Amino acid sequence: MPEIRKDPVFGRWVIIASERGLRPNEFRPGGAGDGHACPFCAGNEALTPPVIYSLPGPAGGWRLRVVRNKFPALTSEGSSDNRREGIYNRMDGMGFHEVVIETPEHGRLLEEMPVEAIADVLKTFMLRIKEIKKDPRIKYVMIFKNHGRNAGASLLHPHSQIIAMPMAPLRVMQEIDGAADYHIERGTCVFCDIVTEEISFKRRVVAENSSFLAVTPYASRFSFETWILPKKHFSHFENIPETEAGALAEVLKTALGKLSASLPDLSYNLIVHSMPVQEPEAEHFHWHIEIMPKLTHVAGFEWGTGFYINTVSPEDAAEILNTGQTYKI
Amino acid sequence: MPEIRKDPVFGRWVIIASERGLRPNEFRPGGAGDGHACPFCAGNEALTPPVIYSLPGPAGGWRLRVVRNKFPALTSEGSSDNRREGIYNRMDGMGFHEVVIETPEHGRLLEEMPVEAIADVLKTFMLRIKEIKKDPRIKYVMIFKNHGRNAGASLLHPHSQIIAMPMAPLRVMQEIDGAADYHIERGTCVFCDIVTEEISFKRRVVAENSSFLAVTPYASRFSFETWILPKKHFSHFENIPETEAGALAEVLKTALGKLSASLPDLSYNLIVHSMPVQEPEAEHFHWHIEIMPKLTHVAGFEWGTGFYINTVSPEDAAEILNTGQTYKI
Repeated sequence: MPEIRKDPVFGRWVIIASERGLRPNEFRPGGAGDGHACPFCAGNEALTPPVIYSLPGPAGGWRLRVVRNKFPALTSEGSSDNRREGIYNRMDGMGFHEVVIETPEHGRLLEEMPVEAIADVLKTFMLRIKEIKKDPRIKYVMIFKNHGRNAGASLLHPHSQIIAMPMAPLRVMQEIDGAADYHIERGTCVFCDIVTEEISFKRRVVAENSSFLAVTPYASRFSFETWILPKKHFSHFENIPETEAGALAEVLKTALGKLSASLPDLSYNLIVHSMPVQEPEAEHFHWHIEIMPKLTHVAGFEWGTGFYINTVSPEDAAEILNTGQTYKI
Repeated sequence: MPEIRKDPVFGRWVIIASERGLRPNEFRPGGAGDGHACPFCAGNEALTPPVIYSLPGPAGGWRLRVVRNKFPALTSEGSSDNRREGIYNRMDGMGFHEVVIETPEHGRLLEEMPVEAIADVLKTFMLRIKEIKKDPRIKYVMIFKNHGRNAGASLLHPHSQIIAMPMAPLRVMQEIDGAADYHIERGTCVFCDIVTEEISFKRRVVAENSSFLAVTPYASRFSFETWILPKKHFSHFENIPETEAGALAEVLKTALGKLSASLPDLSYNLIVHSMPVQEPEAEHFHWHIEIMPKLTHVAGFEWGTGFYINTVSPEDAAEILNTGQTYKI
């Protein structure tokens, strides 16, 4: 069983999951690079654990499936109790790890799918969070997508992941605390203020509709980093009206489409930042999506300090994306 | 001139340095991969900015050189004052960025060098910090080494970097705050306690002598992550007696040598964690070195949460390193 260990200095949690080292990797020599043995393709359903949720497709097939991760970082056994080990703390690796297979088509990019199909993926995320958070042991549900080799993806077939865990991770808490400090100081939500500032400044806007805004953030850590912010304040992603999924899908499709057009062979990480699932809506925290293209390897300086060097200003990045230029690394 | 922007949520600083995008990269198609045009090789001194410090080598040559980085992340011009920009904060990219060329030999690994030569590199770090911190605008001096393509290195020739900056970076402050909390709660230094615990537990020790200990830390974020801890409490790396440099070089050589033997084609980041340079010695913070091998690309989950998944436990990692086994990724 995986275990979760706490760093005694930072209070940072680390999952030690030896079984996960065994998972297949298409990008590795000898991996399933030709797609024939892809466990996410239609016809290969027997290669994945049993389905948790699916949406029907044409001819009795499926258009989206959610399955348990075959090599989970966390498992449903074990307790969420803290235990001491010498001067250290640990707990069982209790939680859930699911995979959302976004389409039966192996080589399809998310941004190439119709808006309705992208909305289905987003609605599935919301539905799964609402279901998983009924388990009171679960404190946080992380939704993320790794696309491409540089972003740490081990399979090419379009998919996202859901990890439900028994504590709120450190960086999530730091983000919420930072937003709470801003709210105490100024009486407003920092993300609502960012939306207002960016609409007025214009030069960092990449996509916009009546409900959502995509921008290259002021203090972008990575070249072409892009955030999608809802214009309406909600703390929990899963609490937005289901009717908003289409508008979000539209802005996501535009933003990913522009990134993909300007950055050949794009790799990226997409992460939904949301409130811990057992907490109520809060005035100071506003859910959003962060997309981080991985153009270069992050170097030691960044790791050691949380202090990033970015060689493309967000204003230049937005201009390149909006004019459809190709960026050469 | 580079600028430094502050993220309004985290208080995280980001350097926006467009000029750095122009630097050469040996690992890129068309880069100086054959070593002939390497600016760090003996005979090519004219390709680097003027030398800041050097140690003499045989036959009138040099055995170590420190030069300004030709593509600096920060420059000596500008002020360290904070300025507002809409709802955001920024300052000029003021600071120093130096390169320590560790040897005139292009293909030599640090761990292959004699202990005395490694000690020279460490003594050079101390000397440069002591010199740079005379400038009161400088609050932190980061010493780091990126080795190999996966670790973000752009040149193969053995070198380390020194970045001096006008603020203490966020993660450094979080580490010091975490250690201060531990000290308030238990009255002891968390790093002194780690040294005691690890010497007694034994199974995570990779190298040891009378002054230093190398361990795979309890909550390792990365497979084969290795820390070097001084047994004697000092907050500032640059304050240790110069006579200790040999002992540190010995443990560093052993630790890197074991990593290199078990992990073929090793890439790693090495970072010195030390106290902000203008602060006094403190009971709660203890300088140390962190070495992070880069075996796989860090995936989205880690970035979004500060919550890491590691597929090799530190106990297994230490055993593999100490028995000289080769680890297959």
